[in-house]
Amino acid sequence: MNPAVAEIPPSLIRAINARKRPGDIDLGMGEPTLRPDPAPFQAATDWVREHGCPYTPNAGWEELRETIAAYSPVVGGAGARSVCVTVGSQEALYLAVKAVLDPARDEVLVVEPSYLAYAKLCMLEGVRHRMVPLPPDDGFAPRADAVLEALGPDTRMVILNTPGNPTGRVWPEAELRRLAEGLAARRGPPVYVLSDEVYRELYFTPGPPASIARFHPHSLVVGSLSKSSAMTGLRLGWLVGPEEVIAAAVKVHQFVNTAASTFAQLVALELFRTPGALAAHRPVYAARRAALLSAAERYGVPLLQPEGTFYALVRLPAALAGDSLGAAGGLLEQRRVVTVPGLAFGASGEGWLRLSWVAEEEALDEALRRMAGFFAECG
Amino acid sequence: MNPAVAEIPPSLIRAINARKRPGDIDLGMGEPTLRPDPAPFQAATDWVREHGCPYTPNAGWEELRETIAAYSPVVGGAGARSVCVTVGSQEALYLAVKAVLDPARDEVLVVEPSYLAYAKLCMLEGVRHRMVPLPPDDGFAPRADAVLEALGPDTRMVILNTPGNPTGRVWPEAELRRLAEGLAARRGPPVYVLSDEVYRELYFTPGPPASIARFHPHSLVVGSLSKSSAMTGLRLGWLVGPEEVIAAAVKVHQFVNTAASTFAQLVALELFRTPGALAAHRPVYAARRAALLSAAERYGVPLLQPEGTFYALVRLPAALAGDSLGAAGGLLEQRRVVTVPGLAFGASGEGWLRLSWVAEEEALDEALRRMAGFFAECG
Repeated sequence: MNPAVAEIPPSLIRAINARKRPGDIDLGMGEPTLRPDPAPFQAATDWVREHGCPYTPNAGWEELRETIAAYSPVVGGAGARSVCVTVGSQEALYLAVKAVLDPARDEVLVVEPSYLAYAKLCMLEGVRHRMVPLPPDDGFAPRADAVLEALGPDTRMVILNTPGNPTGRVWPEAELRRLAEGLAARRGPPVYVLSDEVYRELYFTPGPPASIARFHPHSLVVGSLSKSSAMTGLRLGWLVGPEEVIAAAVKVHQFVNTAASTFAQLVALELFRTPGALAAHRPVYAARRAALLSAAERYGVPLLQPEGTFYALVRLPAALAGDSLGAAGGLLEQRRVVTVPGLAFGASGEGWLRLSWVAEEEALDEALRRMAGFFAECG
Repeated sequence: MNPAVAEIPPSLIRAINARKRPGDIDLGMGEPTLRPDPAPFQAATDWVREHGCPYTPNAGWEELRETIAAYSPVVGGAGARSVCVTVGSQEALYLAVKAVLDPARDEVLVVEPSYLAYAKLCMLEGVRHRMVPLPPDDGFAPRADAVLEALGPDTRMVILNTPGNPTGRVWPEAELRRLAEGLAARRGPPVYVLSDEVYRELYFTPGPPASIARFHPHSLVVGSLSKSSAMTGLRLGWLVGPEEVIAAAVKVHQFVNTAASTFAQLVALELFRTPGALAAHRPVYAARRAALLSAAERYGVPLLQPEGTFYALVRLPAALAGDSLGAAGGLLEQRRVVTVPGLAFGASGEGWLRLSWVAEEEALDEALRRMAGFFAECG
């Protein structure tokens, strides 16, 4: 058996999810509870009725690649040739790590707290990685300097996520520009920034989140329909970046799974053709976020106000702060509220719990009431 | 960039396909021309309308996994736990190579002529491989001894394909039993057989093809709906094998693409629930095969009678036999018939052309007529 596979530690999120019981209030989820618009599915089915369900080219349909290139522009982009259509954003991350990095010498920096799959992907591929923690005292505000100071001679990729899971923070354009300038000033081969932008439609800042791909020529952008359009099960994502990287990614892609689903690509084309479709769910999230913040204030639950995503971090009281896994377990056992321990997002997440606020407003309110009671009792 | 990606040679099949012009008779294709039944797509769309399109568990829906376990039994199987639902058979191959093999020491034997992605997958993962040619003089008849004689001390996997692309040959049960016995008699860690059975429904032998998984406990079976049900674009396949291998494969699977599409799994469940659905296209292929054989006889084109798949190998006349790439190019340029050079399936395929006989019968007839003319002129 492959030792690289055996070495990857099991998921804490999964461990918590396995303890869920019917009737628990579930704030542990990583997917929307909203329903997707069924119209694009029907349109895709009608297409299949008429044309069958053949392969698309490995990299995806030309028209969809062009559409995604326009939706997610990269400096120096080459239209369709800048895009590989993938099986969800997860495959896009995989392709980027696999295509770009030489396991014999390259190193990756992963900004945390973050989705731990970034780090585990590196482990699976035998690529060295180091975590770059953002400071909790500043609410995990993204800081270019934290990354620039961590760069080593072998660093060839920085992985960041904006809007970010689990913090809900958005990288400000000024910090992204500072990061791009710092990377450009380095000698030697380029340092790629792998920018996971799957939550880009779910922002609550005045304007949409900035993308480093607008000014850093070695950017690789990951996106998908999963979060914006409540289509996690469709498995349709994309990787956008420099033409030569995309060519290598497509080569890997064909060995990993040949091509993304033709059906899923039809759904995506339909969605992209419908004005406003990708942003359709944002007002619902904005309303739930407002309900979350008002419940947090009502019950005195200290949380980081999310600027994007559908997550928020809650600060544990001092007595629980050293053991987020224990705190999440206690909240689950004693108050029947499912959350994810901050430790599941890296060492810097210790002392926090992540909650998903995709639940209905009444459930959110009740969950925060119980959480406050639990904290008062233990803290 | 990752040197393992750069080192993989480009596909000869793709090179030929890139030279196709409108109006050419295309016998180069690797997918059915038949239309899939649209009913399962409609049923899946109706389900999404009601339930949304959430993730399934990483390994796939329990019911689908159980259904596949029953459809593709393995000795010592553990029901659903023996199955990972994948993004087409390509991902199943990828997971098997990635989960089982230690690149630091293991070696793979690939029986050829074969789909060259088997060998390229090993290259991508940095796993050593050797090709095991079957003898052309015997029409590439599968022989256990060829494999057993090639085993080395580090061999940990044998990859075979039955019914086989491009030969159309089916491994006889007696040869599979002989192979299993030979592998069982070896000392040391087990040698896995990765058995690609994507064409299992497309057989023209008296009974269905045997699977080595019925008697070799270290078998990994790959299957999909692509070929049987003309759903290449659905990207729904599976890997079946020992529970501990599947557990490792699922771990890789979640980093590669999280899970197979929920929609595709719904279509698969619908198909499996419909009696006879997976075999529905076989009579059409049987009729086309008969048309192929009669045209080959009519025009004197020497081909290997396929026992399965929708391919056949044509023996090149002596004057062309040393350059199947040139022969395929000449046939394309001068007679406008697209075929694939045998060299695209390994060195042992040199001297042959592969044709797909999924085309309509008149097109097949005309293509074989032109082929005979080309051979007469050049050979």
